[in-house]
Amino acid sequence: MSIRVGVVGAAGFAGIEVVRLVLLHPEFELVAATSNELAGKQISSVYPAFTGACDLAFSTHAEAPLKECDVVFLAVPHTAAIAQAPALVDAGVAVIDLSADFRLKDPAVYEKWYQVEHTATGLLAQAAFGLPELFGEELAALADRRAKGNGVLVGCAGCYPTATSLAAAPFIRAGLLGEGPVVADAVSGVSGAGKKATERTHYCFADENLEAYGVGNHRHTPEIEQILGIPGRLVFTPHLAPLDRGLLSTVTLPVGDTAISQAMLDDLYTGFYADEPLVSVLTGGAQPKTSSVAGTCRAHVAAIYNEHANVVVATGAIDNVGKGAAGQAVQCANIVFGLPQATGLEQIAIPA
Amino acid sequence: MSIRVGVVGAAGFAGIEVVRLVLLHPEFELVAATSNELAGKQISSVYPAFTGACDLAFSTHAEAPLKECDVVFLAVPHTAAIAQAPALVDAGVAVIDLSADFRLKDPAVYEKWYQVEHTATGLLAQAAFGLPELFGEELAALADRRAKGNGVLVGCAGCYPTATSLAAAPFIRAGLLGEGPVVADAVSGVSGAGKKATERTHYCFADENLEAYGVGNHRHTPEIEQILGIPGRLVFTPHLAPLDRGLLSTVTLPVGDTAISQAMLDDLYTGFYADEPLVSVLTGGAQPKTSSVAGTCRAHVAAIYNEHANVVVATGAIDNVGKGAAGQAVQCANIVFGLPQATGLEQIAIPA
Amino acid sequence: MSIRVGVVGAAGFAGIEVVRLVLLHPEFELVAATSNELAGKQISSVYPAFTGACDLAFSTHAEAPLKECDVVFLAVPHTAAIAQAPALVDAGVAVIDLSADFRLKDPAVYEKWYQVEHTATGLLAQAAFGLPELFGEELAALADRRAKGNGVLVGCAGCYPTATSLAAAPFIRAGLLGEGPVVADAVSGVSGAGKKATERTHYCFADENLEAYGVGNHRHTPEIEQILGIPGRLVFTPHLAPLDRGLLSTVTLPVGDTAISQAMLDDLYTGFYADEPLVSVLTGGAQPKTSSVAGTCRAHVAAIYNEHANVVVATGAIDNVGKGAAGQAVQCANIVFGLPQATGLEQIAIPA
Amino acid sequence: MSIRVGVVGAAGFAGIEVVRLVLLHPEFELVAATSNELAGKQISSVYPAFTGACDLAFSTHAEAPLKECDVVFLAVPHTAAIAQAPALVDAGVAVIDLSADFRLKDPAVYEKWYQVEHTATGLLAQAAFGLPELFGEELAALADRRAKGNGVLVGCAGCYPTATSLAAAPFIRAGLLGEGPVVADAVSGVSGAGKKATERTHYCFADENLEAYGVGNHRHTPEIEQILGIPGRLVFTPHLAPLDRGLLSTVTLPVGDTAISQAMLDDLYTGFYADEPLVSVLTGGAQPKTSSVAGTCRAHVAAIYNEHANVVVATGAIDNVGKGAAGQAVQCANIVFGLPQATGLEQIAIPA
Repeated sequence: MSIRVGVVGAAGFAGIEVVRLVLLHPEFELVAATSNELAGKQISSVYPAFTGACDLAFSTHAEAPLKECDVVFLAVPHTAAIAQAPALVDAGVAVIDLSADFRLKDPAVYEKWYQVEHTATGLLAQAAFGLPELFGEELAALADRRAKGNGVLVGCAGCYPTATSLAAAPFIRAGLLGEGPVVADAVSGVSGAGKKATERTHYCFADENLEAYGVGNHRHTPEIEQILGIPGRLVFTPHLAPLDRGLLSTVTLPVGDTAISQAMLDDLYTGFYADEPLVSVLTGGAQPKTSSVAGTCRAHVAAIYNEHANVVVATGAIDNVGKGAAGQAVQCANIVFGLPQATGLEQIAIPA
Repeated sequence: MSIRVGVVGAAGFAGIEVVRLVLLHPEFELVAATSNELAGKQISSVYPAFTGACDLAFSTHAEAPLKECDVVFLAVPHTAAIAQAPALVDAGVAVIDLSADFRLKDPAVYEKWYQVEHTATGLLAQAAFGLPELFGEELAALADRRAKGNGVLVGCAGCYPTATSLAAAPFIRAGLLGEGPVVADAVSGVSGAGKKATERTHYCFADENLEAYGVGNHRHTPEIEQILGIPGRLVFTPHLAPLDRGLLSTVTLPVGDTAISQAMLDDLYTGFYADEPLVSVLTGGAQPKTSSVAGTCRAHVAAIYNEHANVVVATGAIDNVGKGAAGQAVQCANIVFGLPQATGLEQIAIPA
Repeated sequence: MSIRVGVVGAAGFAGIEVVRLVLLHPEFELVAATSNELAGKQISSVYPAFTGACDLAFSTHAEAPLKECDVVFLAVPHTAAIAQAPALVDAGVAVIDLSADFRLKDPAVYEKWYQVEHTATGLLAQAAFGLPELFGEELAALADRRAKGNGVLVGCAGCYPTATSLAAAPFIRAGLLGEGPVVADAVSGVSGAGKKATERTHYCFADENLEAYGVGNHRHTPEIEQILGIPGRLVFTPHLAPLDRGLLSTVTLPVGDTAISQAMLDDLYTGFYADEPLVSVLTGGAQPKTSSVAGTCRAHVAAIYNEHANVVVATGAIDNVGKGAAGQAVQCANIVFGLPQATGLEQIAIPA
Repeated sequence: MSIRVGVVGAAGFAGIEVVRLVLLHPEFELVAATSNELAGKQISSVYPAFTGACDLAFSTHAEAPLKECDVVFLAVPHTAAIAQAPALVDAGVAVIDLSADFRLKDPAVYEKWYQVEHTATGLLAQAAFGLPELFGEELAALADRRAKGNGVLVGCAGCYPTATSLAAAPFIRAGLLGEGPVVADAVSGVSGAGKKATERTHYCFADENLEAYGVGNHRHTPEIEQILGIPGRLVFTPHLAPLDRGLLSTVTLPVGDTAISQAMLDDLYTGFYADEPLVSVLTGGAQPKTSSVAGTCRAHVAAIYNEHANVVVATGAIDNVGKGAAGQAVQCANIVFGLPQATGLEQIAIPA
């Protein structure tokens, strides 16, 4: 099988990681990588890591034969996916959207947090949510529709929602959550701030620095609440730390009426992810390390019972651009095309 | 005035930072810097930053003329301060202890968390808590006793407690805290793990990595609860990030019955620290950055009202070895000797 | 084909990278990974990057069925390979030695620089030098002997010699080198200092630091001179910089009687490596970046004519643990077993 | 004494470091800090390290009372200093120029390397070269002229020239240099690339990366040759490494007819800098570390005799923004005003 792939917005950090993963994928063939800004330039001249590995040049969105692709990844800002996805889906393409446009099921929530109208609500209603370990059935349903020749759409989860939800979902879905706020303090590497050169991404400002940002108003808040089913209860505070790739979310979960033990937690989490090739549960007190998943589509999670305050502290580590964006997008595409979900995603992080 | 200073445990990260600050201090004279392990070696041969700035060699604890010092800083592991402080205080020395031995007012709490008996409870009862912005009266009382020629003892606050408490105290002391857990997720640079070469401190393991540690059982938990008066309510989760110096604590504080606004918070915090030379409040949405205080004894704090979940998110940034240890120790010593508290602590961080 | 692989010294940085590459290799099967120190521990418990990807535990050298392997990688200190290689070769195993024991063709040179007698000089005489792009014929000859069922031995090039020689060889082999010293100033990431926790590898000492080391006496000096055929002419100065993986060698080459132009250099280098899948030549003024090859077995080289001083400045970037050690070892093994040399080495570095 | 100070171009990395040092200086008073781009903004709002330490706002160049200052630091791009210095000198101000405009004594050399005409050659002829340890007499002469009320001008050395020349000068001035190229391979932290946000300074591109740049054509080449008196003989290759502050230059010096020993070198270097408070010589095989001088105006140098190739390898470590720019500028100002040269420059680097 050779699945023809287009990547729109291929010059950004998520887009170029999709390109990397497609080149390494045994069933995918890279047909087009678009960047209006860099059109005509060799990918390897912009990202020299591709030297000797890829001869393709960036093309414009308009020139690229996207409708002739089997799958198109949209690595574009929000609103741009709303503009581009409908025509591609109509043309029978499987569209994997990495933007925020098709994540929030309620258009009103989208409009509140993104301050823009959602103009493709019909398509939104048909989109599957791209977080396979928690919404596998939605994706499986898409695979069926795709197998019948239909265009389909996946709205992939964001980076913070992925790590936070993978850490918290087993506990919450087991009905163990008590009352009160759920606090998610998450820390991301600088690649999360994107490719644009700004003061925030300047080496000398990011180096040797820790800081919170978007306190109380980060747009991933409603997405996490939707995934976990905890509307209005999430305190989400993202932070930046001096590393390139990596995201750690630490979620403090109030315990409800059911008494908790560490053994119960370990069993719960281990069982929950037993059949998931890309999520591993650490037990015995081991904590997820972002370095163990950097450059991969893997996630490591752990849950510790904090007896002192009677809460559970669940942690999840991912590569924000990998499992948090491009890797997860490829994982979703694998599912849509009936491939084993980890196909082409066997990377192992540099051990140390 | 020339105040004779001894530093015990001068080879560790906190101790050598005390040495640095003493050398830069206009009223302090470094008389002895002890390290049993490195005794006889020039300080500058171990820490070449002192080349051209300090000709002293490390001496053993036993050889150093500590009782002839006006002030002795104990930068030693817990239990070692219990062993050394009493004789020095009896000899009329002002002892500034950076260890955990004289922080917890209740010996039973010390014994529970440190798993060792406290054998100097009489001295513990007389010790002042070394966090000047929150316990200035205790330190002022010590200055009086010192002025009369008595030996005195300060048990300096730990690094996480300093950042966490400076961030949370204005809100809590104003009686605004509601019910439920107080969640402090804090991130420290690797210097917090100490000078010992271990896998945790190995560059290749710490680089490009984020991870939580001590989840649910870190010994700073009871200290923070004591400072803030919230026994059994703190969920404290420390993390390591790839930087040398810097500590950021993000504290999520449930709001009580009093309605909160951002303006009220800004006024509260600005007023609380109005007379404090080493703590600055950031308003207007600015967030504390550890890089802005690295190498200094300064703290930056901010408090944001998260309306979505009706909590306050307070953040505090310090240099874990500066305001979190050595700088604060010097600040306490300044107060004990009747000097302006910021004397010799005017360092400004490298701007970028 | 399934080639049975043993890795001796698998817990060190080079050894564990061999393990990683073997797991990702389509034709290799990992049979044993030895570490006397960590025997019995799951690899993934020591290096959590392997969680979900490898269930093997470390075994002792003695227990491991090394003689039943097709190929054994020796990732051990020098002298340990001399002790272990002969019996394995006698047993018909293909031995790929990553240590320094079988690199220097003249035992007297080995004994001078390593201050120990070489006790396997017979085997040394039969060993191929493991730097495929420059010594492909030696390796091809080994493939023939291996195909006939014989044990064989490859002494893989060191990290600094690999980067330095790939950068300088096209110029020198073309007979363009003039008189005078050849200066190689090279910079390595901290992984080059090994897994042992020391002051040198402590995050707080390595972070934000640049320094030279081994000035005038680094053991890679005679190896580079041997590869390039410039005995007594090399000034080699290695440095450490704050990164994990990556090595850049900058080689200043005096120009001889032949007049040089940039165009000539570009042609020379491009032609020299035209058929090499793992070495790319950058032209048009682009400079090799270590980040473009981190985590891979690729090398990027460039040569610039410095007209001002009439020298050529050649630069080579590799991952010191990848192309500089484990990757090159796998590349050599591929050749010995008649596989395309880049088999299993198609990794592409994280683009940014 | 209170010396009134203006800083032009105060928002860049060198300019803001001058501001920091002026605020910490016992004899200097900051009167104006200009930035046309940021005029009106609090310095502390742009660089939060100044929060609580400085209440000044940036002003425009035009508004600032520069002619009423005793000393004005020009931290501006080349050509801008030529435009601004003459009027200030005419007004009797001591001008300390950090740009390249008044470094090269021969206008033709300036015009060749900077590709622009030098329109203040009269002033150039009167300027002192700002590298006190090597050109102290020029600066002392300026102090005399300044004491008589004249405006004066210092053209401060660049960062690479400072480290390179401090390392090489003792050897060369002793007449020990043989024939052939002098190779200086230098590595700088990212702050050397300036405050502008570009791909080069983006965290994700600079992190975990080493690369050479400006190979064969860097503008510091003629400046180093001028300082050391080696026209046309310097091979200068700068590199970037992932750190903020720090610059290490490794200089390979051919040995002439005089036989060299390590003891002779140590004596030579130690004697050469014996009276210099800000330059320290490391002996006994110790190598300069940039971390030992970061944030300071200190320089560490060492010289090793490489017997194998009969060359001397001299290394110099500085903070590129400190001794390499702002610190050296303040040091020059101290001399011009008759102060001890290290006044206000007693900072000691963070030990680890």
